[in-house]
Amino acid sequence: MTLEAIRYRSGSLQILNQLLLPHQTVYDEIRSVQDAYEAIKSMKVRGAPAIAIVGCLSLAVELRAGAGGDDPVTFIRESLCHLTSARPTAVNMGRAARELMEFAENESMEKNSEQLRESVITWIEEMLERDVNDNKKIGNYGAQHILSGVPRDSVTILTHCNTGSLATAGYGTALGVVRSLHALGRLKRMYCTETRPYNQGARLTAYEAVAEGFPATLITDSMAALTMRERGITAVVVGADRVVANGDTANKVGTYQLAITAKHHGIPFYVAAPSTSCDLSLESGRDIIIEVRPPEELTSINGVPIAAPGIEVWNPSFDVTPHQLITGGIITELGVFLPSELQAALTGRLTAL
Amino acid sequence: MTLEAIRYRSGSLQILNQLLLPHQTVYDEIRSVQDAYEAIKSMKVRGAPAIAIVGCLSLAVELRAGAGGDDPVTFIRESLCHLTSARPTAVNMGRAARELMEFAENESMEKNSEQLRESVITWIEEMLERDVNDNKKIGNYGAQHILSGVPRDSVTILTHCNTGSLATAGYGTALGVVRSLHALGRLKRMYCTETRPYNQGARLTAYEAVAEGFPATLITDSMAALTMRERGITAVVVGADRVVANGDTANKVGTYQLAITAKHHGIPFYVAAPSTSCDLSLESGRDIIIEVRPPEELTSINGVPIAAPGIEVWNPSFDVTPHQLITGGIITELGVFLPSELQAALTGRLTAL
Repeated sequence: MTLEAIRYRSGSLQILNQLLLPHQTVYDEIRSVQDAYEAIKSMKVRGAPAIAIVGCLSLAVELRAGAGGDDPVTFIRESLCHLTSARPTAVNMGRAARELMEFAENESMEKNSEQLRESVITWIEEMLERDVNDNKKIGNYGAQHILSGVPRDSVTILTHCNTGSLATAGYGTALGVVRSLHALGRLKRMYCTETRPYNQGARLTAYEAVAEGFPATLITDSMAALTMRERGITAVVVGADRVVANGDTANKVGTYQLAITAKHHGIPFYVAAPSTSCDLSLESGRDIIIEVRPPEELTSINGVPIAAPGIEVWNPSFDVTPHQLITGGIITELGVFLPSELQAALTGRLTAL
Repeated sequence: MTLEAIRYRSGSLQILNQLLLPHQTVYDEIRSVQDAYEAIKSMKVRGAPAIAIVGCLSLAVELRAGAGGDDPVTFIRESLCHLTSARPTAVNMGRAARELMEFAENESMEKNSEQLRESVITWIEEMLERDVNDNKKIGNYGAQHILSGVPRDSVTILTHCNTGSLATAGYGTALGVVRSLHALGRLKRMYCTETRPYNQGARLTAYEAVAEGFPATLITDSMAALTMRERGITAVVVGADRVVANGDTANKVGTYQLAITAKHHGIPFYVAAPSTSCDLSLESGRDIIIEVRPPEELTSINGVPIAAPGIEVWNPSFDVTPHQLITGGIITELGVFLPSELQAALTGRLTAL
């Protein structure tokens, strides 16, 4: 079985409502940019690549219905601006917005409103296809790189949060690497952290693992160090919300701690991310703005309070892992690079693996 | 307000049912050793020192009612054996059982059954009193040691699990250090991890912090590294279920990861534990048997499932922090010692602080 988290056909978009997983499998209709904005904000859809693709596809749906009338460029600009504001840490939506806007403005020089709508829709549909293909490349590059260190053995991977079909246009990034290892018959076991406070690991990664038949074990975030010491972890592989020029990586909170712990145990630590998650405009991770989310994510589960009333809470959603701790490499659709090679690789000055 | 987790008067014992905290404050009557065994096993009472004191007090309650008849020594032996089996990782119950058994056997040489019961009850009541006094000493020694590094500033402490009034005979160990710092007007803030999977931090430590008026912030276990980097943590202070001869320390799972993370940030890492939690009969942490608890602790909260059905789970309850990572010291009622000094200190060959 392969999970279908995003169902798109021309003029119609449905997303698997991740707030209801793993207990209910419900697809929500996304009829407008505003529907997508709300789905992203409320985390019915999450994961930086999936946010971008759902945002853009919602725009395609509205354009198919003729939105924007005689001035589609203004409609597109306002829509993209709105979509980008829903989850500011994830870079993919912002990048897609800039590229799509530039494309739309160029097209508008030569085309009428109807033709412009058509070409923007085509651009978005190609983006969907390209994203899935890029993830498959990430999976294969990552698997080969990890296996190059262990010629004959099967491997045990530890991952964090959810970076699978549910977080991307399809296939997955870090979980795509696991998927590729499994397809090669070389995955001994995957350990997934539950990923507090939002439990993406327990709800979503575990759901994908069960659905796909990966040998997988769920642990709490606090058990990662013990798991590394006791369970023979070959590599830690995580996704990224944003990778900046020096390789510093913003990802789900807890990633930084995992990287420190992996380093302590001499276990290679990989970040798997499409080049669209890389933001060379920022020099270092210090420049990344970290989203702080509501306390209720920690203090209740499904509306049931689980913490002492009255306690203060700090709930940063992401942290930044300094490039020095990314010892395995950054796995992209172009190959696997050391953080120090990333900038050259993405600007075409370096080809790796 | 000071929390009263254990209510004892001659012949009667009540414990605050920690399974119902923080939402309900209910005291359960403990009428027998079997009641105490079940309360310990089900975690109505938890924390290694509290387990020992509740176990022994339940025996005192039965002895007051005449249990053991003409052969109290056999009754005492069987009771202590049963109590020790409820949570094997916590060393305090085992140690109290050995000491009490030795005392009872000596007393039985000279005394009749009724006199023996009286002297055992007195021994247990003195143990309760001594434990609270030892915790106050731990609090003061720890506070002074931490403050010696920051002559005038107030301090920010990060702690894990629950080591307060709810985990001990009273006052607390690691949380006793926080209590002493607060009493001295030198506690800027305490950060407490929620401590998955059982949420002792979110439920119990946060409950104590609110009750006592400590400035306190709840974080997830995975946010500790970010908190250390961003929030100016002065020291990490945790409790212990067992400290062995070389200073290796078994404590709530996640402690090892916190120690690695503290070391990475150059933040002193302290273990606060009464000498009764020290077990010099074991050379190193490799000899400690780690309790593995049921998967349901991870996969549901209050009976509500929170993980994908069918996922495998590993749920070790404790981990072992190697002595090299205990950089601040081990805080006991005798003073603060480096792991390398512990053995000499506990056998009277060294006096510190």
